[in-house]
Amino acid sequence: MTITQLLNRIKPLDQEQMAETQAYLDTLTKPIGSLGVLEDMACQLTAIYQDPRPPIPAKALIIMIGDHGVAAEGISAFPPEVTTQMTMNYSSGGAGANVMARHAGAEVVCVDIGVAVDLPDMPRLIKRKIAYGTQNMTQGPAMTREQAEKAILTGADIVAELVRCGVGMVATGEMGIANTTAAAAIIAAIKGESAERVVGRGSGIDDSRLQRKITIVNQALTVNKPNPQDPIDILAKVGGLEIAGLVGVILGAAAERVPVVVDGFISTAAAVIAASLSPDCKAYMIGSHLSIEPGHQHMLSYLGLEAMLHMRFRLGEGTGACLAMIMADAALKMLHEMATFESAGVAISISRPSETQKAKDIPWGHL
Amino acid sequence: MTITQLLNRIKPLDQEQMAETQAYLDTLTKPIGSLGVLEDMACQLTAIYQDPRPPIPAKALIIMIGDHGVAAEGISAFPPEVTTQMTMNYSSGGAGANVMARHAGAEVVCVDIGVAVDLPDMPRLIKRKIAYGTQNMTQGPAMTREQAEKAILTGADIVAELVRCGVGMVATGEMGIANTTAAAAIIAAIKGESAERVVGRGSGIDDSRLQRKITIVNQALTVNKPNPQDPIDILAKVGGLEIAGLVGVILGAAAERVPVVVDGFISTAAAVIAASLSPDCKAYMIGSHLSIEPGHQHMLSYLGLEAMLHMRFRLGEGTGACLAMIMADAALKMLHEMATFESAGVAISISRPSETQKAKDIPWGHL
Repeated sequence: MTITQLLNRIKPLDQEQMAETQAYLDTLTKPIGSLGVLEDMACQLTAIYQDPRPPIPAKALIIMIGDHGVAAEGISAFPPEVTTQMTMNYSSGGAGANVMARHAGAEVVCVDIGVAVDLPDMPRLIKRKIAYGTQNMTQGPAMTREQAEKAILTGADIVAELVRCGVGMVATGEMGIANTTAAAAIIAAIKGESAERVVGRGSGIDDSRLQRKITIVNQALTVNKPNPQDPIDILAKVGGLEIAGLVGVILGAAAERVPVVVDGFISTAAAVIAASLSPDCKAYMIGSHLSIEPGHQHMLSYLGLEAMLHMRFRLGEGTGACLAMIMADAALKMLHEMATFESAGVAISISRPSETQKAKDIPWGHL
Repeated sequence: MTITQLLNRIKPLDQEQMAETQAYLDTLTKPIGSLGVLEDMACQLTAIYQDPRPPIPAKALIIMIGDHGVAAEGISAFPPEVTTQMTMNYSSGGAGANVMARHAGAEVVCVDIGVAVDLPDMPRLIKRKIAYGTQNMTQGPAMTREQAEKAILTGADIVAELVRCGVGMVATGEMGIANTTAAAAIIAAIKGESAERVVGRGSGIDDSRLQRKITIVNQALTVNKPNPQDPIDILAKVGGLEIAGLVGVILGAAAERVPVVVDGFISTAAAVIAASLSPDCKAYMIGSHLSIEPGHQHMLSYLGLEAMLHMRFRLGEGTGACLAMIMADAALKMLHEMATFESAGVAISISRPSETQKAKDIPWGHL
C-alpha cells in the first residue's frame, strides 16, 4: 500500500446517522443535551460504525516506541537506556499505561518502530524497526522521507491487523526519550509558531534545560527548513519514528472505520500531521486529556478536539487515552441502557446489559 | 445523634500517610508527579482509609430526591410531576445516573427525603420523607431549622448504614425540580455574591426564564435574610430537603472515614454548607466534573476541589460523580499494580490484580 492509497480509503462520516442518533438521544430521560461530551461521542461513534446501536468495542492501546538522535543534546530528564527498560515494563504489565489499559479493558500492543538497540523477543511486543533511532535533528533531517512513509504505513498495517482480530477502538500511546522536543518542533513547523510558545518541560526539566530545548527546536527548524505545506517533510525532518508510526495508526484507524482516541502532547502532534494529510480523518479522532505541555490546547483547538479529562498528566504512553476510552464506553452504554421518556416508568427493571465485544487471539504475546 | 455529635466525629487526615504515599508514588516507573490528579487522589484515599494499599472499595451513589415550593414560580423547564416519574426511572434502572453508576460498579440508592406526593414502594428507594416538599422561599423560609437538621442527620444515617454494609466510597446525586434555583440562592447567601453571578440555565431555560430566576433568588434572599455566618440558617431558608440530605451524606461520609465524590452544581452547594459546618470534611471530598452552571467553578475553588472531568454535563443525579469514581479506582490501581523502578524488568508478568471489595446485602431493594 502507498500513502496515497491509504489516504484514499478515508471517507467522511455520514451526517445523517449523527443527526438520527442525536434525535434518539433527545428522547432519553434527561434534559436535551445534558450529557454533553457523551452525547457528541455517541453521535460520532454511531456514524463511524455505521450502526445506530454499536456494541461496546474490543479495545487496544498501541504504544509506538522509538529513540531520538536529538536526545544526545541532553534535553530530557531520562537517559536513552530507559527506552529498553520501559519496553520490558510494558511487556510485563507494570507501566502506568498497562494499569490504565487494564482499567479500560484494553489490550496493550507495543511496537519497536525505532528503538536504538536490538530488543529481545517479549510478550506484547511487535518488532517493526525501521531504524536504530532517528538522527540528531540539530545536524540534519531526523530521518529520510522514505523512512517516515514506511513508519506511517507500518502504523496503519498494525491497526488493520488489530481490526481483523476484532478490535473496534484504538488508543495512541508512545514512548521515546526526547520526543516532546520532536513534537514541539512539528507544531512550530506546521503552525509557524515560535518555539517559545510550544516547548514545555516534558518529563520534568528545569529552567536551564527548558531554554536549551527551545534553542534546540529553533536550531532544528533553521537547519532543516521543513516545508509547512508538506506534512511528511516536517515529520521526516523534525519528527520521530514513533510519531510517524502514530500518524499511521490514526490514518489507519480512519481507513478501517474505527475510532482512535488521541492521547496527549506527542500523540496530538501526530494527529496534526495526520489531519494535514487527510482532513477527513479528524472525524475518527476522540480527544482525551489536556496535557500541561503549553502547545497542547493549541493543537486540540486546531483539530477541533475536546480534552474531556483534566488530570494534569504528563506521562504519555497513552495513559490519558485509556481513561478516555472508558468515557467512550459510557457514551455507548447511555445509548443502549437509558430509558426514553416513553419507556420510563412503564416497566420495572429494564437494566439491559450493553453487549461487549471481545477480540479474537491477537498474534502478539499474551494479550 | 445531634449535628454537634456528627461534626465532632470528623477528624483531619493523617498528613504523614499522605507524605508516605507520595514517597512511594515517586518510586513508580514514571516521571515524578506525572500522573497528576491520580497521584493526589491516591494520597488522599490512603489517608482517608488509613491504609497504604487500600482495596478497590464497594461503591454507592446516593440520590436524594425532594420537591421545591419555589417550582410554582415556573423557573424550571420541567413540571414537578417529573419527580415521581424520575424516581420510578431510577428504581427501574433506566436513568442516566443508573447507567453511569453501573459503569462505575456502584449501587444506586434513592432517598425520598421530600417528594411532594406519596410514592409507592419500589426497589432502590428508601422512604425518609421529612416534608411534602419545601415551602416557596419567595414567601418565607423553605423549611424550618428542625427540618433542615433532620434532613442532615438522615443523610448521615444512610451513609452509616451503607458503610455497615461494606460500602467504602459514596457519590452524591440529587433530583428536584427547581433545585438549581435553591443551590444558586445558597451560594449567593454564603458568599455574598450577586444572584446574577451564580444563577444559570439549569435544565435548559430561555433568557426570560433566566431573568425570572435571578429575580426569584434575589426575592428569596430579601424576604428571608439568611445569616451568612449560620450555614444551617441558609440551608433552611433558601435550600432544599435533598440539598440538606446531601449535606448529611457528605458530613456522614467524613465521620465514617469514607471518601465522598461530589457531583455538580447542586451537590457542590451542599458541599459548601458541609464545609462551612466542618472545614475538616473537605479532606474527604473528591471533585468530579465541571458543570456549565456559572457558579460551579467558583464553589469548587472555595472548597479547594478540582473538576477532573470536563464533560459539559448539566444533568445532576450524580452522573459526573459516578464517572469520577472510575478515576478514583484508577488511582488505587496505580498504587497496586504499577511497577517500581526497582521491580521493573526484573520479572516478566507482574500483572497483580487489585483486590475489589463487594458490599454485603444492602437492605433497600435489589442492589
